[in-house]
Amino acid sequence: MTVKKKEEKVKDLFYPSSVVVIGVSTDPSNMGKEIARNLFEFRYTGVIHFVGRDGGIIFGRKIYASLDEIADPIDLAIILTPARTVPGIMEQCGRKGIRRVVIESGGFGEFDEQGQNLGDELKKIAHNHGIRFIGPNCIGIMNASNGLITPFTRMLNVFRRGGVGIIAQSGGVALSFLNMFDSEQLGYSKFASIGNKLNIDENDVVEYYVDDPETSVICLYIESIKDGRRLTSIGRRSSKPILVHKANIGSLSRIIAQSHTQALANDDQVVDAALHQAGMVRLRDMQSYLDFVKILQLPVMKGRNLAIVARSGGHAVMGADAAYTYGFHLPPFREHLLTEIRKHLRADVIRLANPLDLGDLFDFDIYLRIIRHTLKEDSVDGVLLLHTYFAAIEGDSSRRLLQSAAAMSLEYGKPVALCVSSEQFEISRLHKELDFPIFMSPDRAVRALDSAIKYQQRRSRISVNNELAIPKPIPDEESISVLIRGCIEKGRSPMLHEALSIISYAGLDLPDYRIVKNRQEIESSLEDLPGPYAIKVIAASLSHKSDVGGVILGVPDVGNLLRVFQEMMERFGSLNDIGFHGILVQQMASRTTGSCELIIGGKRDPHFGPMVLLGHGGIFVEILGKTILRMAPLYLGEIEEMIEELPGSEIFNGFRGGPPIDKVALNDAILRVAHLMVRFSEIDSLDINPLLVDSSGALALDARIILGA
Amino acid sequence: MTVKKKEEKVKDLFYPSSVVVIGVSTDPSNMGKEIARNLFEFRYTGVIHFVGRDGGIIFGRKIYASLDEIADPIDLAIILTPARTVPGIMEQCGRKGIRRVVIESGGFGEFDEQGQNLGDELKKIAHNHGIRFIGPNCIGIMNASNGLITPFTRMLNVFRRGGVGIIAQSGGVALSFLNMFDSEQLGYSKFASIGNKLNIDENDVVEYYVDDPETSVICLYIESIKDGRRLTSIGRRSSKPILVHKANIGSLSRIIAQSHTQALANDDQVVDAALHQAGMVRLRDMQSYLDFVKILQLPVMKGRNLAIVARSGGHAVMGADAAYTYGFHLPPFREHLLTEIRKHLRADVIRLANPLDLGDLFDFDIYLRIIRHTLKEDSVDGVLLLHTYFAAIEGDSSRRLLQSAAAMSLEYGKPVALCVSSEQFEISRLHKELDFPIFMSPDRAVRALDSAIKYQQRRSRISVNNELAIPKPIPDEESISVLIRGCIEKGRSPMLHEALSIISYAGLDLPDYRIVKNRQEIESSLEDLPGPYAIKVIAASLSHKSDVGGVILGVPDVGNLLRVFQEMMERFGSLNDIGFHGILVQQMASRTTGSCELIIGGKRDPHFGPMVLLGHGGIFVEILGKTILRMAPLYLGEIEEMIEELPGSEIFNGFRGGPPIDKVALNDAILRVAHLMVRFSEIDSLDINPLLVDSSGALALDARIILGA
Repeated sequence: MTVKKKEEKVKDLFYPSSVVVIGVSTDPSNMGKEIARNLFEFRYTGVIHFVGRDGGIIFGRKIYASLDEIADPIDLAIILTPARTVPGIMEQCGRKGIRRVVIESGGFGEFDEQGQNLGDELKKIAHNHGIRFIGPNCIGIMNASNGLITPFTRMLNVFRRGGVGIIAQSGGVALSFLNMFDSEQLGYSKFASIGNKLNIDENDVVEYYVDDPETSVICLYIESIKDGRRLTSIGRRSSKPILVHKANIGSLSRIIAQSHTQALANDDQVVDAALHQAGMVRLRDMQSYLDFVKILQLPVMKGRNLAIVARSGGHAVMGADAAYTYGFHLPPFREHLLTEIRKHLRADVIRLANPLDLGDLFDFDIYLRIIRHTLKEDSVDGVLLLHTYFAAIEGDSSRRLLQSAAAMSLEYGKPVALCVSSEQFEISRLHKELDFPIFMSPDRAVRALDSAIKYQQRRSRISVNNELAIPKPIPDEESISVLIRGCIEKGRSPMLHEALSIISYAGLDLPDYRIVKNRQEIESSLEDLPGPYAIKVIAASLSHKSDVGGVILGVPDVGNLLRVFQEMMERFGSLNDIGFHGILVQQMASRTTGSCELIIGGKRDPHFGPMVLLGHGGIFVEILGKTILRMAPLYLGEIEEMIEELPGSEIFNGFRGGPPIDKVALNDAILRVAHLMVRFSEIDSLDINPLLVDSSGALALDARIILGA
Repeated sequence: MTVKKKEEKVKDLFYPSSVVVIGVSTDPSNMGKEIARNLFEFRYTGVIHFVGRDGGIIFGRKIYASLDEIADPIDLAIILTPARTVPGIMEQCGRKGIRRVVIESGGFGEFDEQGQNLGDELKKIAHNHGIRFIGPNCIGIMNASNGLITPFTRMLNVFRRGGVGIIAQSGGVALSFLNMFDSEQLGYSKFASIGNKLNIDENDVVEYYVDDPETSVICLYIESIKDGRRLTSIGRRSSKPILVHKANIGSLSRIIAQSHTQALANDDQVVDAALHQAGMVRLRDMQSYLDFVKILQLPVMKGRNLAIVARSGGHAVMGADAAYTYGFHLPPFREHLLTEIRKHLRADVIRLANPLDLGDLFDFDIYLRIIRHTLKEDSVDGVLLLHTYFAAIEGDSSRRLLQSAAAMSLEYGKPVALCVSSEQFEISRLHKELDFPIFMSPDRAVRALDSAIKYQQRRSRISVNNELAIPKPIPDEESISVLIRGCIEKGRSPMLHEALSIISYAGLDLPDYRIVKNRQEIESSLEDLPGPYAIKVIAASLSHKSDVGGVILGVPDVGNLLRVFQEMMERFGSLNDIGFHGILVQQMASRTTGSCELIIGGKRDPHFGPMVLLGHGGIFVEILGKTILRMAPLYLGEIEEMIEELPGSEIFNGFRGGPPIDKVALNDAILRVAHLMVRFSEIDSLDINPLLVDSSGALALDARIILGA
């Protein structure tokens, strides 16, 4: 047996020479029959067999009572029988040498525990026989190029062939995708409904689509992401756009998603961050999804200079508003272009500007000439054509106009986004006849143009930032290891001073501190550590020390320190259950004008692995909420991105007359936290809060580290 | 002549017994002819006359060379002749006793200065003859009930009659609105394209539509708001929803909007705030606009308990995601309802929950029974039905399902939002046959349900808060008047100490201060004013004193004060051009845990009048940007709203263990600033920055007042 590449294993699913549909009967309510019907109606190019317990004849072919009765070799089995029977059938498939299976039956882990066990059995059988399977609990796969149409829903031959590869965890949504794309003349290449994804998952299919020459854009609908690391690493490498609708985002969908496709919840913020980081596009509603696929059919604008050509002044204003909202420039038209346009104006009552209002002009050939001239201009990166008409009056000429404008767009390699207002039936007709996307409002057209530019920029940035960032000098990993091992042996996470040591070994700067356990130690050890001080209790099981009064800031001198120390000892020293260790006396860092408090965090996501987080500290966290996340390890350039993306990051460049913060130091601190998370998988989470950054560096004032269970 | 109510004057425009179209000829390119054609084709119920310089016959009727040749009285003239001829024609109309005119010609103020003069002439003539007119530079008006269809664009009889009243400053957009509404089965009642609105403006038309029994929802597209006070006061009183697309929001649209409808820019933040305050709905794109009008056709949810019934698990998940995003609850179904549902399930492989996935159920009558049972439940305020099907297979039964679900919605007075996924042609058919809105994605349906609830809440809040808030005790307005008059006489705005006096007379609390001009005064006057101090220079023309070092904070005691005073005197005392007046020595207010720095501002908007502003002070302004604006005077309850709407306002309830701030004091301070802005129209702008608010009160630490030119 030759070893196949992973993707080829999936490819085989879509290109079998022979299939068997198992679960077919002549009963009117039988759904397996619909699979059979689809294969016939779509003229599947291979050999088709049927198996069904009750036998019979259908579509002029015998239904075999068992697989064993079929003599021919079979590449692919499609199973739609009650869940309890599926393991037995899989076993038969294995024995017959079938290595690709689609299981459409429901009633597995998404339903109950017994179903869960059946699913486990399937995995075992598949493993034993080297079977790769899709499902269970799905509507199967489709291949537009060979008629392999396997859903148990009767399909109609309305879906055109094209470049959209669809992967969906829900059959219903997958069909909605088909309808939605088809309504805009976008055809599909492959379709996979992956259901409970017990064997082949979204990653396998995405990876195959990336290599599939018939697929140009990959559209994913998914309710849970199991292996986010692999998905994002495929995404980062993919030369094709990967669009993701990750549903099941909140508490309200948990139960239904679980019972629908056995989907477990992901941390939505992590999903957002990871997909963005990998250059994949996350879309949260069908409308934006569709608009994005549409705009991908057009060339991408090289810059943000847009020319707006409108049939009405009002649409021109709306176009300009949209351009303003999404950050486009509207360069003035050059004189020679204006002269050209002026030649054609009938009455002279319209001022020439960008946006250009051609309401006075009824000859669409002149529109086209203007568009052509505009596309030729170096100062124009794209055109927004806002057309409005009544079909019965200007239908033919308008369709010609739109068709020609579309052709020019491709000819000049610049987008001409078509936005049309007309009667509903005319819009439907346009969708049918025009092989080019049209948008229904200036806002949506311009937003789509913006998304395409941002996507392109994101991809170029990723292709440039392709080297991993390494902290220099390398942290003292040996000392960190020793410390962590020590904690693990004691069955606890690091205490405050240990956490501070770890981040110090990792290479972060800290204010100087001492650990004291009695008055004598204060008097003897603080001579070379002048105040003011921050006083913090150290205890093994007290992770939120400030909530219980375990932190006192701004103690001016040793005199006051002795008093505060006494109080703290009285409060915590006798508490055995907190594992009291001592008092940490830290030199207070002084806040200067322009200094900022930030949070750097690390956490380990079960699906996306080590993550690093940047946020504003102090009161800002409460007010702003938003933090920036990335998967670690970080690539060169990604930390700068994190800092840029943090809301309000403009204050880092100097606020209220203060100097800019030391971005190199901030950058280094983030990188070192990311490095810690990658190198020490024992660390479950890590918080540096606050990190005080000013013009002269970054100081970690407090740290907390939790080790994994 | 009987005195008519203002709205009736507009009503007369829409219900003339006879019209004359002026500017008609037999020339193929003549546009006046199209107006004539529309009146005939739509069977206008009154008498129609034509006037055109060249005479001739059209549609079997004579074209008179001049108005004077027509013997019959005429109610309405529609003019479409070159701009320069329009004043003369208006004069003729006046002499003939025509009191309502629609001027469709362009070439007025939107075009050049000469056109501007022509427009001024029109206003004069109209005033002399008591003429009310629409336009110029518009496509006229339409009345669905009497065939008065006056656009110069040939219309086709595709637009149904209904309750949507349209007002648009752009003819093209007005037609787009018609198309858009029509595509969703929403008919119109009246239509007015108001162009340059030299006489009748959006306010006149909106006011009329509010009273028009044939209009149930008012849809406005506008590029400039001239009299925002009147618009919002109509809006506040209106029992009908008023939806506003205010375009021309940014720098890119200024020129085109000006040349399109002579529209000047508004302060977009002011527009936003004022419309919100008045219970009007601002929408920024066509899609949301349409969705809002659609959801208005359904009953409004009384609470946020939503039941989701879906044909597919995936759609159920998407529905639940949308419910989560927009803040709905999905109450569990009660046992008796589940029992009822269970009876009908074919195979038992779907778990019953809300959202309810009925993928396994093919009998739509059972869907309907479930929906009916659900609507009967007190715990359910509305239903989202997510249906997906192929038309050729389940078209008839699906259309019956949707039609019946729509009927139930009305029967039970709870919304059933229909969201459908099917082929494009089927969607078009549904739009045509179903007299009920359908949505194309769960997200949009749920967002629309949310908007409707919010709108309803906003309206009830407005109807409750209908009493103006008055500060008690009333400010010392006499003293404020004296101070302001004094400044005006000197031709300048108040200096720092005067501004502080004004807000103090207005009733705000201030830290104690002294004004000193020499060392002796410091020594003599500060005995009863202990430090630390804030030192501020007082000068007539130095409004941003802190930018030039004119403010020094935290001066601990009189000794240091003397030194700082000396420096400041050296720096500012000799500068004659700043109008140096002295040094203000203010007691520093102490910041406590939980205290907040806010900004209260007042400004006078040219279109919306006195406004009051609330924002975070200090670094937050930079990071958050967003401030809350309201028109003054304020109604009871509106200040609480301002505070609630301020991002991050949760910190006012106690932050980091601090006590909540004194909201009564904050409320009072805002009210007093609003009162100042209303009572003293001389004040152009006013800033209290910062206002220090803590648990014991609100202190205005600094103030700046600019008087109008």
